[in-house]
Amino acid sequence: MKVEIVTTGTELLLGEILNTNAQYLSRKLNSIGFDVLYHTTVGDNPQRMQAVLEQARERADIIITSGGLGPTRGDITKETVMAITHTDSYLDLDTWGRIDAYFRKKGIPCPANNEKQAYVPIGAEVLQNEVGTAPGLWLDYNGKIFIMLPGPPSELMDMCEKQLFPRLLQRFADHGIILSRTLHLRGVGESRVAEILDDVIMHQSNPTIALYARYGEILIRMTAKAADDQAAAKLLDTCEAQVRDYVDEYVYGVDDASLAACLGQELLAQGKTIAFAESCSGGLASSLVTDVPGSSEYLLGSVVSYTNKIKNKLLNVQQETLDRYGAVSRETACEMAIGVRRVMGSDLGVSITGNAGPSASEGKPVGLVYIAVATEDVVYCQEHRFTSTRTENKLRIALAAISMAIDKLKEEKKQA
Amino acid sequence: MKVEIVTTGTELLLGEILNTNAQYLSRKLNSIGFDVLYHTTVGDNPQRMQAVLEQARERADIIITSGGLGPTRGDITKETVMAITHTDSYLDLDTWGRIDAYFRKKGIPCPANNEKQAYVPIGAEVLQNEVGTAPGLWLDYNGKIFIMLPGPPSELMDMCEKQLFPRLLQRFADHGIILSRTLHLRGVGESRVAEILDDVIMHQSNPTIALYARYGEILIRMTAKAADDQAAAKLLDTCEAQVRDYVDEYVYGVDDASLAACLGQELLAQGKTIAFAESCSGGLASSLVTDVPGSSEYLLGSVVSYTNKIKNKLLNVQQETLDRYGAVSRETACEMAIGVRRVMGSDLGVSITGNAGPSASEGKPVGLVYIAVATEDVVYCQEHRFTSTRTENKLRIALAAISMAIDKLKEEKKQA
Repeated sequence: MKVEIVTTGTELLLGEILNTNAQYLSRKLNSIGFDVLYHTTVGDNPQRMQAVLEQARERADIIITSGGLGPTRGDITKETVMAITHTDSYLDLDTWGRIDAYFRKKGIPCPANNEKQAYVPIGAEVLQNEVGTAPGLWLDYNGKIFIMLPGPPSELMDMCEKQLFPRLLQRFADHGIILSRTLHLRGVGESRVAEILDDVIMHQSNPTIALYARYGEILIRMTAKAADDQAAAKLLDTCEAQVRDYVDEYVYGVDDASLAACLGQELLAQGKTIAFAESCSGGLASSLVTDVPGSSEYLLGSVVSYTNKIKNKLLNVQQETLDRYGAVSRETACEMAIGVRRVMGSDLGVSITGNAGPSASEGKPVGLVYIAVATEDVVYCQEHRFTSTRTENKLRIALAAISMAIDKLKEEKKQA
Repeated sequence: MKVEIVTTGTELLLGEILNTNAQYLSRKLNSIGFDVLYHTTVGDNPQRMQAVLEQARERADIIITSGGLGPTRGDITKETVMAITHTDSYLDLDTWGRIDAYFRKKGIPCPANNEKQAYVPIGAEVLQNEVGTAPGLWLDYNGKIFIMLPGPPSELMDMCEKQLFPRLLQRFADHGIILSRTLHLRGVGESRVAEILDDVIMHQSNPTIALYARYGEILIRMTAKAADDQAAAKLLDTCEAQVRDYVDEYVYGVDDASLAACLGQELLAQGKTIAFAESCSGGLASSLVTDVPGSSEYLLGSVVSYTNKIKNKLLNVQQETLDRYGAVSRETACEMAIGVRRVMGSDLGVSITGNAGPSASEGKPVGLVYIAVATEDVVYCQEHRFTSTRTENKLRIALAAISMAIDKLKEEKKQA
């Protein structure tokens, strides 16, 4: 089944919001065996949206839209699908009742213009919205399926999980399966991996193999097509073994792996705990580590020490060190790592101090960062330079610290 | 000038990465007066990519691609553009030298397959890549322009800022301008704003007005077309005044405003400082606050207290409170806020304690969160329920804490 995802909304074309719906729908649909071939984004313009939907109907079996089901005049997705399928609508009292109840529950009178949302194209089925007002719609028309979903991600996801995906699986129970598996690599570049794997990749067509680079890691994605899950998994197992023959030393995880989760696994395996002292990363390293469920098992806590006073008072960085070398220095990084380890009572202390930009400080360049890892006996320190925007630098810095912590955990284990 | 952005890469269609390039390009291009009418995403498949590019050439004047310029076999964007423009390529020694130098600087021998990146379509101009290996390309063909950019966001952005945008502005110095302005609202729902503004929106065509909802806020976007910046700004000024007549009480910022930046402005205006004690948000509130340049002026520091021991030791939460009410309680939240305020020596202490999910703890439900704000004299506490995934809950929790801090700052100012 070929799918095209049509995300609508001028705010997407203006770049005011990120298109997270296209990513979410693609990941989920692929995982249940649907082939997403195109994403198209179009604004709230009737002619252009109509042309896009007509083309989507030509090149896909299932057309999934997101957005444009709201109560305002700018919301035209339902109306445009109705135009190209020559469908009329009726006021669905059940849906109107649900919208009214939604507002009543919130203690707000239901605004009159929400009535627009209760009009349902004749022949369409309603996908109820349990977290917002805009109902989703499923419309079969001439062998194609139009699925209209609301734009707000939380509404769209709730509707997909509870109603759309179960329904798609029921309707297309017997079609083939596409399964992907992704290996995550650290400590090696994309070109080098491409060179190593050139022969393997060239002779593979099912699964296919693709490489790409992401913050601080390289991903190898293998995609298999087969009649069922089991057959696809078998193809992937063989392919993975073949790939690992060449690059196993760099592989740190599979599929949903992340550097933060990898750190968590290593800590759990060694029964160790960690704490962070963050200056220029402002808490982001801790936040990434706590994105992983169960991280309370090994992250004891962190200190965001944005001022020298806090570095001194909470982390016991010597005032002399701060005066002599400055906050952005190898010396301060080391004392922060030792200090946070002691104050939190953790096995590892990881510190980050530097300048995320955009302006220089202490006469030191933007992007200069020191990361230190303290264990019981040793403190390691690395100097880094980052050259992106403030927020991207923060992300790269936080990931570099997590990556260094993994390295040191692994090295210490080897030496032990 | 009509622009279509064509992002390529099967990883996008599989939903493995978010399409940040489309957002970045759209925001920037709109701001310099180019009309982005479509985003299309297509995989690394020659036939489908060719069809997409041929269509883009029909409906746009400028076609901007991202991705598919790498050294691997899966990188086919340049080859596909060459196919539809009947263009051959040559080995550009200058570009080849730059790629070689890139690797030499890193102390790595240049992999042989990077040579592929040094082939330049005849008639194209090279946009040098200063942060990676894939050169960008600008190809004029039959009155249309194909612009090919690398996929990694940091490479694409660097190339755009330094080379592409200045060049586009030079080439199209005399075309009209589209200018947008966005008002950020707090404390009101989308339907309510739509209802209030219905009359205004109905009678507006230039600027147009659109509404949308985002985490914890409502945005009103006004978009004006005019001959130049000044004329467009004047249209926006009039429109903004009109809109503010109705909703001014809810407006907290304009354009790049964020709740974190709003908090920063309020703190700076009142000459106050802040500190966070974060449990279930894991440092994210501090990280959001420190995304704002200059935040070191008012954020003294934070404690991520993931364990009860740290809550007790670093934040002086009474052991009795933790034993009796649990970590997820109004009582603990209040003591954390008071504690962090004292230990950091800040004017405001903000605390967050709760359960971000996915599992329940202390017999309390997932998503139950307490947020407290302590000032010199008072400590305020709110109970919240969040119902999304762990990472989305973390974001909503952090923003709710920032929002509450803004409220309390404003209320205290009024009372003073």
